[in-house]
Amino acid sequence: MDLKTLNKFLQEHFPQGDQYGVLESVEDGSAEMRLPVDDQHLRPGGTVSGPAMMGLADVAMYAALLTRIGPVALAVTTSLNINFLRKPSPEADLIATARLLKCGKRLAVGEVYLSSAGEEEIVAHATLTYSIPDNRG
Amino acid sequence: MDLKTLNKFLQEHFPQGDQYGVLESVEDGSAEMRLPVDDQHLRPGGTVSGPAMMGLADVAMYAALLTRIGPVALAVTTSLNINFLRKPSPEADLIATARLLKCGKRLAVGEVYLSSAGEEEIVAHATLTYSIPDNRG
Amino acid sequence: MDLKTLNKFLQEHFPQGDQYGVLESVEDGSAEMRLPVDDQHLRPGGTVSGPAMMGLADVAMYAALLTRIGPVALAVTTSLNINFLRKPSPEADLIATARLLKCGKRLAVGEVYLSSAGEEEIVAHATLTYSIPDNRG
Amino acid sequence: MDLKTLNKFLQEHFPQGDQYGVLESVEDGSAEMRLPVDDQHLRPGGTVSGPAMMGLADVAMYAALLTRIGPVALAVTTSLNINFLRKPSPEADLIATARLLKCGKRLAVGEVYLSSAGEEEIVAHATLTYSIPDNRG
Repeated sequence: MDLKTLNKFLQEHFPQGDQYGVLESVEDGSAEMRLPVDDQHLRPGGTVSGPAMMGLADVAMYAALLTRIGPVALAVTTSLNINFLRKPSPEADLIATARLLKCGKRLAVGEVYLSSAGEEEIVAHATLTYSIPDNRG
Repeated sequence: MDLKTLNKFLQEHFPQGDQYGVLESVEDGSAEMRLPVDDQHLRPGGTVSGPAMMGLADVAMYAALLTRIGPVALAVTTSLNINFLRKPSPEADLIATARLLKCGKRLAVGEVYLSSAGEEEIVAHATLTYSIPDNRG
Repeated sequence: MDLKTLNKFLQEHFPQGDQYGVLESVEDGSAEMRLPVDDQHLRPGGTVSGPAMMGLADVAMYAALLTRIGPVALAVTTSLNINFLRKPSPEADLIATARLLKCGKRLAVGEVYLSSAGEEEIVAHATLTYSIPDNRG
Repeated sequence: MDLKTLNKFLQEHFPQGDQYGVLESVEDGSAEMRLPVDDQHLRPGGTVSGPAMMGLADVAMYAALLTRIGPVALAVTTSLNINFLRKPSPEADLIATARLLKCGKRLAVGEVYLSSAGEEEIVAHATLTYSIPDNRG
């Protein structure tokens, strides 16, 4: 699946998905998404909320997974582990870089690095697992 | 902190917090929150979204933590681990039951059970850790 | 499977398993194991080592899983998340209480509480997931 | 700390540490360890046991941490999250590559990739957190 097809698929299956970010690039087994941060994503103190970061990580990893298994709307997230490392900037977009560590027949595992656009240090690191249905598609 | 004081504190410090649920009861080291599920929390297929569940778990655990350390707006979530076990009902409220497993001077750890109101089986289980600032308050 | 059958199965399939503890009781979906702590499990400073605790948690959860799915030597641990909360006593046995949170056709999830025998506070909390093979047995 | 100093420190503070591997190289914020796999690390079916992998990951990350904070015997592992991705070869050494993602004043977070020597695909991925004492040394 190329970027355009993937974007269309994500929009159809995650109608609220745009609040979780925009797909910027994909390669085999990896994807990069950008979340244009605005007030709905902020917490008091001006930091991006945890759920906004977790939502972005999940959709980015899902996109990376789709590059391997094709459009399987029924793949489901079974677990997410995230470490919050630094406060993201409230004024910069949030970038998620996701890549698959394993894509088996039934289970996929990947990791996601989150950073503020223009900054080098990552703000959070997430590991996610997905269950892949027997009948894909 | 009693329920009323805690609710006030959460509303002041999480102005978007109502999208993550309503505090129903607190005891020493534990808290129960209810998320009135509506369209903004749903995914295609009519299931509650992961970020909605994770946001609810985080705020519920935060409330449980406040029962011990008092109103510390600066306590920050350092990690979250969640296992999604079953699909929550799209027509029932989501209930989070949070309790502290440890509340040290610098670090707190707790777990949260999520279930659909009226159902016995849990739909997700989360473990969270928080960093507690040196100067509380 | 009763306690005797389970113990026999664990011994056959984990010949080094006795270093991870002794099964004390089982019920449907849960199990309790005891690790008689000795020098091989200790770290400098006289605390039980992390790997000893993780090994105990894994075997205890595995036993709890077997109460549901029967003797499936091929079920494999796919993930483990553990929070170390307090130092276990070097002079007390370590007790693991494991229970299933979900036992699906392909995936099982459970949690384990670890404590020092005779103490009330838990020393560690673990969450584990297992992949269950299609052809059981 | 260079490789020699670090090895000496690990041996003094983890007398059983050699069962968890040998430090092969260190850089600022990262470390590589090798576990010469033998019978004590194997499970029936000839695969490396989970606790052996987790012990290796923990010591490797600890070494990476020491490159930053110096010889602090009292830094303690507060959590470990591991995903088991593939069966390690029973006939190859196990290699752990650890690197810090964050090293704050009180909390450090890092990730570890485990692979069988000579193989490209990783067999497990771990994320670990450490609590750093106030008085280092």
